[in-house]
Amino acid sequence: MDLPKRVIISEEGPREGFQIEKGPIRTADKIALVDALSGCGLAHIQVGSFVNAKHVPGWADAEEVFAGFVPREGIDYSAVWFNEAGLRRALAFKDKLTLAGFISLSASEPFAIRNLNRDRAGQIEAMTRYVQVHRDAGLPIGKIIVMAAFGCNFAGDISTAKVVETVADALAIARDACIEVNDVTLADSMGWATPRRVASAIGAVRDRWPELKIALHLHDTRGQGIACAYEGLRLGVTSFDAAVGGLGGCPFAGQPGAPGNIATEELALLCEEMGISTGLDLEALIEVARLAERIVGHSLPSAALRSGTLATFRRNAA
Amino acid sequence: MDLPKRVIISEEGPREGFQIEKGPIRTADKIALVDALSGCGLAHIQVGSFVNAKHVPGWADAEEVFAGFVPREGIDYSAVWFNEAGLRRALAFKDKLTLAGFISLSASEPFAIRNLNRDRAGQIEAMTRYVQVHRDAGLPIGKIIVMAAFGCNFAGDISTAKVVETVADALAIARDACIEVNDVTLADSMGWATPRRVASAIGAVRDRWPELKIALHLHDTRGQGIACAYEGLRLGVTSFDAAVGGLGGCPFAGQPGAPGNIATEELALLCEEMGISTGLDLEALIEVARLAERIVGHSLPSAALRSGTLATFRRNAA
Repeated sequence: MDLPKRVIISEEGPREGFQIEKGPIRTADKIALVDALSGCGLAHIQVGSFVNAKHVPGWADAEEVFAGFVPREGIDYSAVWFNEAGLRRALAFKDKLTLAGFISLSASEPFAIRNLNRDRAGQIEAMTRYVQVHRDAGLPIGKIIVMAAFGCNFAGDISTAKVVETVADALAIARDACIEVNDVTLADSMGWATPRRVASAIGAVRDRWPELKIALHLHDTRGQGIACAYEGLRLGVTSFDAAVGGLGGCPFAGQPGAPGNIATEELALLCEEMGISTGLDLEALIEVARLAERIVGHSLPSAALRSGTLATFRRNAA
Repeated sequence: MDLPKRVIISEEGPREGFQIEKGPIRTADKIALVDALSGCGLAHIQVGSFVNAKHVPGWADAEEVFAGFVPREGIDYSAVWFNEAGLRRALAFKDKLTLAGFISLSASEPFAIRNLNRDRAGQIEAMTRYVQVHRDAGLPIGKIIVMAAFGCNFAGDISTAKVVETVADALAIARDACIEVNDVTLADSMGWATPRRVASAIGAVRDRWPELKIALHLHDTRGQGIACAYEGLRLGVTSFDAAVGGLGGCPFAGQPGAPGNIATEELALLCEEMGISTGLDLEALIEVARLAERIVGHSLPSAALRSGTLATFRRNAA
């Protein structure tokens, strides 16, 4: 079995989680979660979003959270924003954050219309402006994100041709701005991925652009997330997003209550138990997942959080 | 991608679930669950256990449940027992049930000592007697079950050599009784399986006995169950156990509160969404999972149960 030796898992729990939880969640608790995550060996932590508080009330206190967390050496802390106003707010924290924009396009036009009130042409126009604003601010464009890459609650199945078309549109935006982007994240925004769809989409993108590095952003909406991640590993994917405890979910998916992102500790357990190094401290991560449960005030979907790792059993058996 | 065209998922929710739930659960509810499962397209339903009520109080009402459910044409209903007393009780329902014994050995000796108070020699002796009792009663031995085939909370990691040794012991018991057994279920009794361990164990058993048909009995203790099932599918496994809603868990695993079996509806969704026919009505199955939640009085771990299938989204998008 030919699996990668090492993968990078980017933690998106705070950003994904607090945008969807009914809350209100205390600012101090948000900061506590970020600080606790800093002790788990993660290389990347997405702290939060600079977004309109009217649309995402869970991030109305973004400034306080970004001011409050204590950065730890060697960790990239990032933020998300969708327009120039958000970028300005993020720039105020440029000493603490690794700032980069991304070219985000939805493979599903109905999803973009519903989510962003933009058709494909409108998305391209907005992203072209967005890239320009980032160039003007001296910020890099880190990656392309293909939303709804495996299916959509409003459009149904998404063909691999549509995924390829979306990547091509994003690359054209980069090219027009004289920017090189080599990273593409295929995002299963609404939980439609299966291992077969993961293999098809990755295959189609690689056929056309063998040089692109593909990452996966998976949700565990229907219990298929870890199987999809495993398929990614089999195909040599070494970069994944995840959220501690399985926090998160898409607020625009039209499906409240559905489970969120794949749980960081379940993905790390999959990797570590198969000999793939993640650099993560699994026991510490599960403690943080328990903290996340206490903070959001309800149980989170991660099974690994409930059962713990195999380490204690191994120690007791030895 | 070379996946099977068709798989058989055997439902073990009632037996697995009611043996571990704190309850008490009303007999009428147990019967209602079995009857509801009969409407989902399942070919095999394991109804319950004829076991000592002192050890498994959840099945103290086995006779009433077996008497009460309404069998549906074309479905094999089965039961579990572990000794002659249990067999006698099962025989009273031979008109409704497909009765067969099995040769069950634990790949982990510490688990067998803890669970059954028997070392390996004691297990072999007991199983030899058990097979003889079944021959005398004119009942077939349906399969070999290797418990703790991927790891054990009391013994730690289980080598593939130990799995092969366990199958060899079971085949020797069958041979000594002049019985042919061609089916082997590898059971992840305590949630240690990963796709890599599934591949190794299947590979080792097939290398030695290419003629044996391997089935998987997986738990989702740490969120790896569906990924392990997917690895089984990749390797051509076409027979799986599962439990609606993710009911169940091993009462002897020393790990109360851990998630149970892989959820029938999540496994069926994995298969059907990848073009593998299960014969199951997914929507009906999810309704039954919701019924199971109401019956046990707490939420069950299945994510598919919470999010539903993709069918409605597809219909609305069309």
